Parts: sequence; structure tokens; C-alpha cells
Amino acid sequence: MKLTKDKELKLEVIRHSAAHLLAQAIMQLYPKTKLTIGPATKDGFFYDMLPEENFKEADLEIIAARMKELVAKNYPITHEEISKEEARRIYKDNPFKLELIDGIAGETVGFSRQGDFYDLCRGGHVASTGLLANFMLTGLSGSYWRADQKNAALQRISGTAFEAKQELENYVKQKELAALYDHRKIGKEMDLFSFQEEGTGFPFYHPKGAFIINKLKDFIRNIWQTHGYQEIITPTVLDVSLWKQSGHYAHYHKHMYFCCIEEKEYAVKPMNCPGSILIYKQNLHSYRELPLRLAEFGHVHRFELSGVLHGMFRTRAFTIDDTHMYCAPEQLEAQIVSSVQTIDKVLTTFGFKQIHYAISTKPENAIGSDELWDTAINALKNGLSKAGKSFEIYEGEGAFYGPKIEVTIFDSMGRAWQCSTVQVDFFMPQNFDIYYINNKGEKQQPVIVHQALLGSLERFFGILLEDCKGHFPFWLCPTQIKIIPITEKQLDYANQIADKLKDLNLRIQIDESSEPLSAKIKVAQLERIPWMLVLGQKEMDNNTITLRYVDGKQEFGLNLEQVITKAKEVNRI
Amino acid sequence: MKLTKDKELKLEVIRHSAAHLLAQAIMQLYPKTKLTIGPATKDGFFYDMLPEENFKEADLEIIAARMKELVAKNYPITHEEISKEEARRIYKDNPFKLELIDGIAGETVGFSRQGDFYDLCRGGHVASTGLLANFMLTGLSGSYWRADQKNAALQRISGTAFEAKQELENYVKQKELAALYDHRKIGKEMDLFSFQEEGTGFPFYHPKGAFIINKLKDFIRNIWQTHGYQEIITPTVLDVSLWKQSGHYAHYHKHMYFCCIEEKEYAVKPMNCPGSILIYKQNLHSYRELPLRLAEFGHVHRFELSGVLHGMFRTRAFTIDDTHMYCAPEQLEAQIVSSVQTIDKVLTTFGFKQIHYAISTKPENAIGSDELWDTAINALKNGLSKAGKSFEIYEGEGAFYGPKIEVTIFDSMGRAWQCSTVQVDFFMPQNFDIYYINNKGEKQQPVIVHQALLGSLERFFGILLEDCKGHFPFWLCPTQIKIIPITEKQLDYANQIADKLKDLNLRIQIDESSEPLSAKIKVAQLERIPWMLVLGQKEMDNNTITLRYVDGKQEFGLNLEQVITKAKEVNRI
Repeated sequence: MKLTKDKELKLEVIRHSAAHLLAQAIMQLYPKTKLTIGPATKDGFFYDMLPEENFKEADLEIIAARMKELVAKNYPITHEEISKEEARRIYKDNPFKLELIDGIAGETVGFSRQGDFYDLCRGGHVASTGLLANFMLTGLSGSYWRADQKNAALQRISGTAFEAKQELENYVKQKELAALYDHRKIGKEMDLFSFQEEGTGFPFYHPKGAFIINKLKDFIRNIWQTHGYQEIITPTVLDVSLWKQSGHYAHYHKHMYFCCIEEKEYAVKPMNCPGSILIYKQNLHSYRELPLRLAEFGHVHRFELSGVLHGMFRTRAFTIDDTHMYCAPEQLEAQIVSSVQTIDKVLTTFGFKQIHYAISTKPENAIGSDELWDTAINALKNGLSKAGKSFEIYEGEGAFYGPKIEVTIFDSMGRAWQCSTVQVDFFMPQNFDIYYINNKGEKQQPVIVHQALLGSLERFFGILLEDCKGHFPFWLCPTQIKIIPITEKQLDYANQIADKLKDLNLRIQIDESSEPLSAKIKVAQLERIPWMLVLGQKEMDNNTITLRYVDGKQEFGLNLEQVITKAKEVNRI
Repeated sequence: MKLTKDKELKLEVIRHSAAHLLAQAIMQLYPKTKLTIGPATKDGFFYDMLPEENFKEADLEIIAARMKELVAKNYPITHEEISKEEARRIYKDNPFKLELIDGIAGETVGFSRQGDFYDLCRGGHVASTGLLANFMLTGLSGSYWRADQKNAALQRISGTAFEAKQELENYVKQKELAALYDHRKIGKEMDLFSFQEEGTGFPFYHPKGAFIINKLKDFIRNIWQTHGYQEIITPTVLDVSLWKQSGHYAHYHKHMYFCCIEEKEYAVKPMNCPGSILIYKQNLHSYRELPLRLAEFGHVHRFELSGVLHGMFRTRAFTIDDTHMYCAPEQLEAQIVSSVQTIDKVLTTFGFKQIHYAISTKPENAIGSDELWDTAINALKNGLSKAGKSFEIYEGEGAFYGPKIEVTIFDSMGRAWQCSTVQVDFFMPQNFDIYYINNKGEKQQPVIVHQALLGSLERFFGILLEDCKGHFPFWLCPTQIKIIPITEKQLDYANQIADKLKDLNLRIQIDESSEPLSAKIKVAQLERIPWMLVLGQKEMDNNTITLRYVDGKQEFGLNLEQVITKAKEVNRI
């Protein structure tokens, strides 16, 4: 689900103007700072600069206060064209701006002014600084001139801005919630995973985290089996020639890791497609086998700058539940119906009930005939409709090699995420010259549908962790039930209960520590164990159980059969 | 299980002499050949040489025939010392031998003679060529002078030789069987996996092969859970500093793949230990948690020269069921009992009933005190004894960092394999400075036991595949039952049967093709599907089933309940 084009443009103008506002405050407070560039981004804006003395986090407050004063002054913002010669004179002490001026075509450059401040600028501003009240500064980080580590190290101040006060307040609230339920923080509390400097960006799964990832895989594998997908495993390291053929080497080179084997260059796979295609090519395929759905938990490595890594949300290695469906073109629609239904089922299982669908259509630089595109887009449209889903059209936003379905989910904090993928691909089949034998005995080219249900399992894990604030669905919890004898006198009774629950295949722990009840409960709560069976003298005497939920609600005097019935109910996927 | 030292030495002398015999035949037949070296190996011998014109496979027969003639002539083999000067004169046209002469310390070099043939040689020969009757040539391959790709390319002729005729015959028979049931051949027939030039040495698992690998993992995971092992997942790529600390960089560098990330060097992991230790170090551990057993299906990459790659037996990437057990020293014995019992259970489950155990003890270059070694070796001895296993002692053959249990299994062709590992390690705990808090509240260093049950899953898969000739245990088969309607008239009946078997969780296929029965059976046999349910008119009329086993045995007139009872019985692990 996207903003309207109008709203998007409006936000861009506000945010770009806010970057100028930030720069104005900076130049008033720290006049020796050398400004570089200050663009709007998807979520806000930033300005990169070389300060005389490095800024500290605490400076942001001072800067924001000055920005507020500048808003109150409501300076008109004007824009003009000046000669390059004049611009060079103005910026004679700023090598960054001089370099920017050199890079601009023509004899003049754009120039904006507000009060005592001026900046090199292409234009697109609000009318005056008074319209920029709804901003906030969000962070201070390092960056490089032209994002190249070989160049000068700069500092980046980031922020965001909105049209309405309410929008900013919503944003702030979302940020606060996100910080409170940051998956890196909860993951540490629950001992799920860690990140370590020996492997920046590569997650280490501790036992409970590995358990959950394996459960997610089992869940997906089960869906694969139900729908006739066949699981394969392809190598992690493959010859560079393959990545040249696939086009990844040319277009994705910067994100790939390379190593050398017997003087030949190999790449650690950033994608799973070429491996799947090589397996497809090992056998001759008849139309009777199609759609052939080869699925893989493909562990891929993609380079990301250390500055953009973000816990499980953005790692340098992750596992995709990656299916490549080799279809006859006329099978596309039926496959899409099934794919959409499957995605819907998977996402709702995890509690994501608000799912938005859109189709991205043919872009300008597309390959493949209009006819093929029309067929495919119609298949996507009909597939979504037949699956009972409404959808938007994102005109011209498809990849050059085929249209796709964009699936957006919204978490409990209202944030939008894209996890599932359905991407039609005309290019790879052609590029790798794959075919099947049709019912007339002729060679024919299949279409490939790239499908992921969860996408990156690591990222999905992180999203789910924040969405449910660590309280995973019962079936997914590493420990589902903690039996808590109040004193050691109830330990035997606890063991008896555990023994009687054994055949249910539940994951049960007994707290055998000698801590007081309140401490035992606190530990179980921190571990986000959904059920506690609290056993005191009264429970033992009456042969009952107190069921305490992690949120503190309790049910007293349950007998074992009642607990079993409830457990069976809640343990279903 | 090893040969006695005596037998080993005897074989070495015979095989080294056989290499000379080979060289003599070569020099008679192709006098312009330049000989290099011809050592005995573990299984035989080879001679590397630079022929005037490359040998072809067909030449081996001619060479072997000449060797037989030389055996018949029964030349005495003599040995003497000659001056380097004389040796250099003799080898003036052979740069390899000249280089060897330069490398020998002292003023003389060893020299052996038999008939018209002489060779540079340290000695250790049989008395005459007549004692070399039981040889065979086994192959022709490429090699490099001093095993370095930068040097001259040579040709290697390999062979083997034995003391007794019967030994050679056994060897030949074993080789023939191995060729007949070569896992690469069966793997292709059964469509289990492939090797492709885009990833030399890296297996591609097709759906059925991936199914089996996943089943093996499930089986192992189940054993892990039963014995309280906790599964973890550690990154594939880790910083070089870690490999330097672990010692792998210094000692294993040649087998590692490296890549560069943000100008830091990283290695693709060749072992799983450092990752496991990093997770151990993330938390403080109490003696109450020990032994802490962290288990991982660790996918490792190890460089091997392309010449030594051999299907699944020797790959460049494989998955180890790798457990690191962090034990208090006094827990070692109990852990060994459990480990040995577990290994025994796992191996016998796959039909390996002949299992040989040995303990490798302290070598000369060992680290750790005598006391620690004694404690550990006693723990291994007592552990094996308490598990009811007899064992040999391999004196001084342990690794420098700890003693180990060597586990050898024998396959259906009598070949010996080492798969399971139990290696005690004093070094890593010290090297990574790990500790736990003992019951006095003090820091104490644990011992690590490295344990693998199957070892490389890829290699075990290959071994099992050859051992059972593709006929996997019923529970492991991707398809367990093929329902074969003789004509399409029985197709409905076939579907009814399949439907009734559905709840048993068996993996069933129906052959819906219109091929004749014999062809359908042949396909199922080639796929090594253990059971065929053959349904003809008679079966349909009488509501019965003919159960045909893959070996051709049949049971007629079974009713569904009988089939279900049998299936349940055979589907147990």
C-alpha cells in the first residue's frame, strides 16, 4: 500500500525543505561546518556535513531548538539561478560544493535562500520556514562523501518531517513502541540470538532461536508438501560464469562475496535462482510435470554496508523460503490463485490479518513481447480476483523481466512490511535456455514464478518478534508450559503432572529452583512462556492446577483433563 | 581397526618394490620417459613420470603384461650407496632426479638395481621381482611435480600389490562391487543428486536426495532432543581473526576459502567449533548446566584439489552433525558412556552391525598435563567398558590437543569407514578462555568433546547408498510404496487403496502411465521403491492386493488390513 503520488511529492518537498532548515540552524550555530548534500529520503531527510569538531548526540537538541526558532521566524524561501562563477566564489572554501558545481550541466546552478542562509539546490521547497513546524531530528551517524569509504568521512544528521502535527505524533508513537519492543532487545532477553563482532551482520542462533527458525521451516515445509512443491538443496558457492550468465554479476556485483578456487573465481550465492535452474536442466521435462515447483531454504549472502545493518531486519546472510515454479504460460493463472491463497493462509496464521495486494506492471525498459506481458498481467489480475482479493495497480513499476504481486502486511504497531513475493520472470528461462516438451512433442519455454512465502526467515523472525512483542503463537514457543511448584514440597506433584502431559508432545519445563514464587513467575514472564502451571499446597491437596497466563490472568482449580483440553486447543496451528 | 605394524611394513615394502617393477617395465617399453618418484601409499603405490608421449588407459595393459614377464624373470633386487657425483652423471638428462639428488643430505645417495633397471632409492625392497606376482595397475591420472600446480604436469600410474594371491583377489572383488554400486551411478539412476561444473565438488540435491538428507537430519535431531542436546545455528562466514585465534588459519589455511568484506578478511567456515564457542561465551554458565551440549548441522567448506574429489565421498562442502559438549572433567566418563551408546544405536539403525572401537592416546607433541591426559584416557576407557564395548589402544596416535575414540564401521562390501567421532579437546577451552562457575563459585575451565554421529552427512549418504546398493531402509525412502494398476481399469481401485492408506503417513505414488506391467515394475525397481502394490482384475474382483517387493518376491491375495499391519511394522526406525 503506497502513498498517493500527490502526498508523496508533498512530503518530499517538506522534507527537503526541512533539510535546509537543519542546515540553516547548523550554519548559525557552527559557522565553520562544511555542508555537502541534504536530500529527502523515503522516511525523512538527512544532511551530510564536515563539522569543525564532531557533533555529539547531545548537540541534536540544541540544533532542533534553533530550528524551531527559525520556524517561528517564518522566513520566505526563495529560489533563483546564479552563474557557476558566482557559485564558485560563494563556495570557495567548500570543496564538496565546488565538486557538486562542477558536476552540474550548463552555465548556471540553482540557489535557494531563507533569511541569512543560502544553499546550492535544484529547487522544490515550501513557501516559508513557518510551514516546517512538524519535524524532528532522529539521529546522528557517520557517512562518506559520495558514499565511498575511500573519500572523506562525514557526519550525517537525520530527521523526518510531516505536513500535519498528528502525522508526526503518530510517527513518534510508532518509533517509541518500536524502541520498546526492539527485536534486538527482546531477542537478548529471551536468549534467542546474538550478533558478534567476529561476524558483523551474521546472526548466531542460540538454542531457542534455532528452535523457532526450525519450526518456521517445518511449517513452511509442510505447506510445500501439501501443495506438491519439491524441496531441493543447491550449493552455497558457485562459479562466477554462472553469475555472469544470470546477470547477477553485472547488476549485483557490489553485494556479492567472492572467493577463489584453483584460480577460478566463485561467488557465495546472493540468490537461489541459478542453482534451481541448473537442477531443472538436469532432466528432460514433459508438460505433464508442469508446474514443476522446486523449493529451497536457500541460505544467501548479500553484502550490506555495516552502517545499514539492523538486527534481523537487515543482515548479511539470510535464508529464503524460495520456490521457483516452472509453468506453461497457460498455467500461470491457476498457479497465482494457489499462490495467493497460500500466502494468505501463511500470513494470517501468524496473525497478520491486514494484507494488501498490488500488481506492478510493465516498465519502460522491459523485455518480452506486449502479448506475453498482457497474458501474465491478466493471469495475476484474474488469479487475485479468483482468490477473492482486491488489489491496486502500480503502473510501470514491475521489474524489467516480468510483472509481480506486491504483498504488504501491517504489524501491531501499524508499520508496513513486504515479506511474501510473487514475481513472474520471462528473462531467466530465456537466458538459461530452458524448455519442456509440450503435448505436441515440441520444445517450449516455461515461465518462472519466483515465490517466497515468508521471504527472509531472519527478517520475518524479527518482524514477528516485534509484532507479538516476544509472545509467539503457542505452537511456535520453544517452551510452552512452565510447571512452577511453589515450594519443593510440590516438586513430586509437578513431576507427576509433567509425566501425565508427556504424550501430548508439548514442550514443558519444571522450575526446580528454590526462588520464591514471584521470582519464578518473573523469570517465566521474561522468557515469554505462555502458560505457567502453578502448584501450591492447595492444588496438591485438591489434585488441581492453577493455570497462570503470561499476562497475569489466572484460572484456578482446573483438573488435569481441563488443562489437556485447553492445551490441545491452543497448540493447533 | 588397523593392520598390525608388521603387516603394514611388509605391505609397504611390497608396494614400494612394485613401484620399481612398474618403472622397470616403463623404461623397457618407453625408454625416453623421465621418472620422478614412486612411493607406497596407504592402499597401494604410484609412480609419477613425464612420458615422451602421454600414456593412454589402454597402455596400462601392455605395461602390466611386461611387469608380469619381469616377475617371471625373478631378478634379484640389490641396494647400494653411490656418490652424488655418479648419480648426477647417471641422471644428467632427468631434471627431476637431479633435483631429488640435490635435496638429499650427505655425499652419497641410495641406489637400487634389478636386471637392466636402476633407480634412486632409500631402500626397503623385497629380495627379488619374483615376490611381486600379486600386483595390479589401477589407474592413470594427472599430477604435478612436487604436487604443485605451478610445476611440470606429470602422469601418474597407480597400482596396488599384496603378499598373497587371495588378498589381491579380495581386493579386486571389492573394487568390482564398488564400481557396480558406485553411488554416483546409483545416485543418477535414482535421481538423487548431481554434480555440475558450475560448482565442482559441491553437491546439488534433487528432490529425492534432499528428502533423504532431511530425513537423516530429522533422525539425528530426534536423537539430540532425546539426549538433551540443544541445537544452534552459527554463521557460514566469520572474521579471519577468529580463525587465527582458533589456530585454523595457521594449520588449515590451504583448505579454507576467503572473502573480503569492507576491507576485512573473512573465511567461509571449514569447522563449526569457533562458532559454537562464541555462543557458549555469550552467557555465564553454572556447573548445573553442564554438560552443555550445543549441536549444529554445520555446513562447512573445505578446499580439496579437484583431482581428489570423489562424488559424495569427498566434496568441497558438506554438513556435519556437529556437537560440542562442554563438560566438567569429572563428567567426561558419563558423557562417553552416553556418546558410545548413542553412536552404537545410530550406526546399527542403518544396518552397520560390525563396529570397531579404539582409543588414540597422547602423542609426543601434546599440550595439557599428564594428569589431564590420564583422566581423559581413563574416562574414554571406562566409558567404552561401561557401554559394553571392547576396544584397541592406538598408542601415541591422538591429536596434540586430546585423546579420541576411533570408530570404524564395515560396509556390505567389507570396506572400512570412519564416520562417527568422539574427540576430547583441552586446547580450545584454553585458547578461547572459556569457563563455568563451579559449585564453590569459582571459575573453572571445561573440557570440550567434539562429537559427530554420522560425520559428513554427504559422505554418510554416499556410504549408505553403496552399502545398501540404493535400497534404503523403508523409513528413509522418498517413495515407499508404488501402487501399480495393471491396466487403467484398476485405476479407481488403486485410488481407493491409496485413500485408505492415507492416514498411515506413508509416502505413496500411483503409476498412472499406460505402460505394460513389466515396464511399470522396471521403473519402480530402478527407483528402488521397496514395495509395489500390484492391482489386476483378479485383485479388484476379490478386493485383495499383491505385494511385490523390489527384489521380485511376491505375496498374493493380501487384504488391506494385512498390508497395513506389515507397513506399520516395516516403517519403524
